[in-house]
Amino acid sequence: MSELTHFNEQGRAKMVDVSDKAVTTRTAIATSSIRVNAAIHVQITDGTNKKGDVFAVAQVAAIMAAKNTASLIPMCHPIPLTGVNVHFDWHINEADNLYEIHIQAEVKTKGVTGVEMEALTAASAAALTIYDMCKAAGKEMVIGPTMLMKKTGGKNGDFERTTE
Amino acid sequence: MSELTHFNEQGRAKMVDVSDKAVTTRTAIATSSIRVNAAIHVQITDGTNKKGDVFAVAQVAAIMAAKNTASLIPMCHPIPLTGVNVHFDWHINEADNLYEIHIQAEVKTKGVTGVEMEALTAASAAALTIYDMCKAAGKEMVIGPTMLMKKTGGKNGDFERTTE
Amino acid sequence: MSELTHFNEQGRAKMVDVSDKAVTTRTAIATSSIRVNAAIHVQITDGTNKKGDVFAVAQVAAIMAAKNTASLIPMCHPIPLTGVNVHFDWHINEADNLYEIHIQAEVKTKGVTGVEMEALTAASAAALTIYDMCKAAGKEMVIGPTMLMKKTGGKNGDFERTTE
Amino acid sequence: MSELTHFNEQGRAKMVDVSDKAVTTRTAIATSSIRVNAAIHVQITDGTNKKGDVFAVAQVAAIMAAKNTASLIPMCHPIPLTGVNVHFDWHINEADNLYEIHIQAEVKTKGVTGVEMEALTAASAAALTIYDMCKAAGKEMVIGPTMLMKKTGGKNGDFERTTE
Amino acid sequence: MSELTHFNEQGRAKMVDVSDKAVTTRTAIATSSIRVNAAIHVQITDGTNKKGDVFAVAQVAAIMAAKNTASLIPMCHPIPLTGVNVHFDWHINEADNLYEIHIQAEVKTKGVTGVEMEALTAASAAALTIYDMCKAAGKEMVIGPTMLMKKTGGKNGDFERTTE
Amino acid sequence: MSELTHFNEQGRAKMVDVSDKAVTTRTAIATSSIRVNAAIHVQITDGTNKKGDVFAVAQVAAIMAAKNTASLIPMCHPIPLTGVNVHFDWHINEADNLYEIHIQAEVKTKGVTGVEMEALTAASAAALTIYDMCKAAGKEMVIGPTMLMKKTGGKNGDFERTTE
Repeated sequence: MSELTHFNEQGRAKMVDVSDKAVTTRTAIATSSIRVNAAIHVQITDGTNKKGDVFAVAQVAAIMAAKNTASLIPMCHPIPLTGVNVHFDWHINEADNLYEIHIQAEVKTKGVTGVEMEALTAASAAALTIYDMCKAAGKEMVIGPTMLMKKTGGKNGDFERTTE
Repeated sequence: MSELTHFNEQGRAKMVDVSDKAVTTRTAIATSSIRVNAAIHVQITDGTNKKGDVFAVAQVAAIMAAKNTASLIPMCHPIPLTGVNVHFDWHINEADNLYEIHIQAEVKTKGVTGVEMEALTAASAAALTIYDMCKAAGKEMVIGPTMLMKKTGGKNGDFERTTE
Repeated sequence: MSELTHFNEQGRAKMVDVSDKAVTTRTAIATSSIRVNAAIHVQITDGTNKKGDVFAVAQVAAIMAAKNTASLIPMCHPIPLTGVNVHFDWHINEADNLYEIHIQAEVKTKGVTGVEMEALTAASAAALTIYDMCKAAGKEMVIGPTMLMKKTGGKNGDFERTTE
Repeated sequence: MSELTHFNEQGRAKMVDVSDKAVTTRTAIATSSIRVNAAIHVQITDGTNKKGDVFAVAQVAAIMAAKNTASLIPMCHPIPLTGVNVHFDWHINEADNLYEIHIQAEVKTKGVTGVEMEALTAASAAALTIYDMCKAAGKEMVIGPTMLMKKTGGKNGDFERTTE
Repeated sequence: MSELTHFNEQGRAKMVDVSDKAVTTRTAIATSSIRVNAAIHVQITDGTNKKGDVFAVAQVAAIMAAKNTASLIPMCHPIPLTGVNVHFDWHINEADNLYEIHIQAEVKTKGVTGVEMEALTAASAAALTIYDMCKAAGKEMVIGPTMLMKKTGGKNGDFERTTE
Repeated sequence: MSELTHFNEQGRAKMVDVSDKAVTTRTAIATSSIRVNAAIHVQITDGTNKKGDVFAVAQVAAIMAAKNTASLIPMCHPIPLTGVNVHFDWHINEADNLYEIHIQAEVKTKGVTGVEMEALTAASAAALTIYDMCKAAGKEMVIGPTMLMKKTGGKNGDFERTTE
């Protein structure tokens, strides 16, 4: 005799059905950061890092990662992005020996799902790339916090982070 | 007449030559974390998230991301990993409404470069996957800090983070 | 003098033009199976496989493979999937020493081509992943038959397998 | 107070550590098959399939899939392959209206893990590609059984399937 | 005190916003070429290349590369292609010992951006694949020129190369 | 009765066996070029291209493409690269309205196969990326010739192009 047990109903994974969601313009902005030491700060701003122009490479990495999000995040729906933009800002307090790069990634699409994951993935990839290019000068760098700042489009309403 | 300018020497990117580095056993441990709300904590521990078993999916995502690191991080050397292991722990303080998942990724190889980036990428991918699966119940989740905890192997000596 | 020969008309490959096909909701269901030995059956159901929860990993592999179908199958058109669902059932007959896992993959899209290949690829990836995780306990496992069970949407009409 | 629970020890996934396994020459042979109808048999042998030369495309797909195995199978270790070879044979019995393509994939490496998964993945990709190219002429095609026929190299000893 | 500098406005990369562009049918035709020696010409036309049928493999490589363009070209928008077709022609002048393969790649989509990059990438991948399969018989092969021949669709008007 | 025909021996593709080749240090240098118009020359040198710093992005694209070669070129063996370096030079003759970017890609590995394909793929990806970023200012750009300049390592002897 045959014994049948259904597993999917017991918490296993699925990529949920979004066939009936409307195609709308959707945007998301995520931020991350990476705290570096003074020597790394000099390397980046002077362009003396031996692997190259750190922000230029990190920006390309972020954009390519945004396009690759659905391959990285298993249950994430694939959506063709229509725009990606990544910014870097230094937050520096020399008295406290604080050298921090703030990363902002903005992603846009016209599609049936939001692009929060694409923005978060872009910001994370930028931070990881900065770490990789600078790690010869100090492995103690700290990445994050990484979070969604804003999201528009879609029927669930917009999101804007109120306090950081 | 022809005008020649060399650009590579001006801070542009390269994947640095590691041909002469020795093949040794190398390990790295990285951590990340993600702070969620009480409802998401219940979803994960009760197995009621509609996308599936959150930790199971995040763990697979982390391992696959570790193997995919050199495609994600532009100047990172490709190395065939020999082992990847990912742990999740809950840090909970109900009085403060604090529900935080700690993620630890450990990566191992026998190769010419370290696996710090693979461990950091694995931990980041796990955090992003948890965010993706739980975001319907609260987009205010915060990822990180993400950092290297320990590294062994290679001539540059070992690394161990002293204070977190 | 110049000699011109056209090769494409002689049976070489092309990704056929589907620009004029209508965007409709399309679904496909494919099945595969894998026959394992009694020890592997115990490993999976008891959760003692040393590589992890076999069905959880196989399900993630199937969903990621479905999204990756157009990279794996050369002449297959890329389409953004809107949903993927994978089920596992045990078919057991202890008297005959038969332990078989039935795999069903259901894929959905709104697009110009059907998703038969995505469903078949998902089911195949699930079976291959189960093989990989269990092969230390017996390499004699047999995968398949793998086949399309049902398909809806598109102007060529629906398909439903009549007899298995 | 903080509550700690370890999840990895509870059946979650890991890519097991193979750092201490020896580098040896390893081979694996896997087979699959696909049963087609008479019209598809004519299309393939006459080179009249509108998507191109079916076996030529399937062979390329198989070889590329073999190289891509560790991206498809989550817990599979990445290994640089040193050779891949794929054969097709027709098994035909017109009296029974049986037209079956037998697929054999042979994979070779010098590495620390076996290449069973690469051979099985190659054979599966070949079968899926044949299905894709011929499905306009009949979606009832059946793929498989797919299985490992032979394996050499590694300390666990060789494997050879005794009866099919 | 904190120091803020905006970098993106200083020439750094972004994937420009195409959210407001109209979905239209778009086509592009690109050409490349590869000059080979007499021995390679014989190998290809006689089917005696030890790696296989050169044009068959190059054609598959071209089609798969076209689908993969947005992963290869960092600022290129991802678009789901609806058709890809690749042709090869021999241009031979034995008196001058000239054996040149002309490659033409035609790509089609319905989307918001053109497919010039997909056509150019397909033609380039075909040329590179021919080089790879034939390089054992002469590494002096020369690829190119590679260029766009024609483009239709989109509000910027059509393009047709006037003189080569 | 059954009819068996072997196809592989008839010119079909295989990834040839290199298991017995020696691991040695191998290098390859390839060049490509792209001819642009005067306006594009200004955009690139002034940093006013709206998609970003053209050479910075092209350099990252080249390095990532080099690492991805075995996924792009079907019969190419996967090898872990140990170094990649890309240079750009302007060759300008204003009298003739000639603005040409020369691209040189140098790749290094310790492995069983040469890295000619990786160098050629890197140079091609750089040229394609420049085309993509500048095409809004003129689609008549011409890429190439693309060719191998030098190769060292491996038992087949070194190669150096004598006359360009």
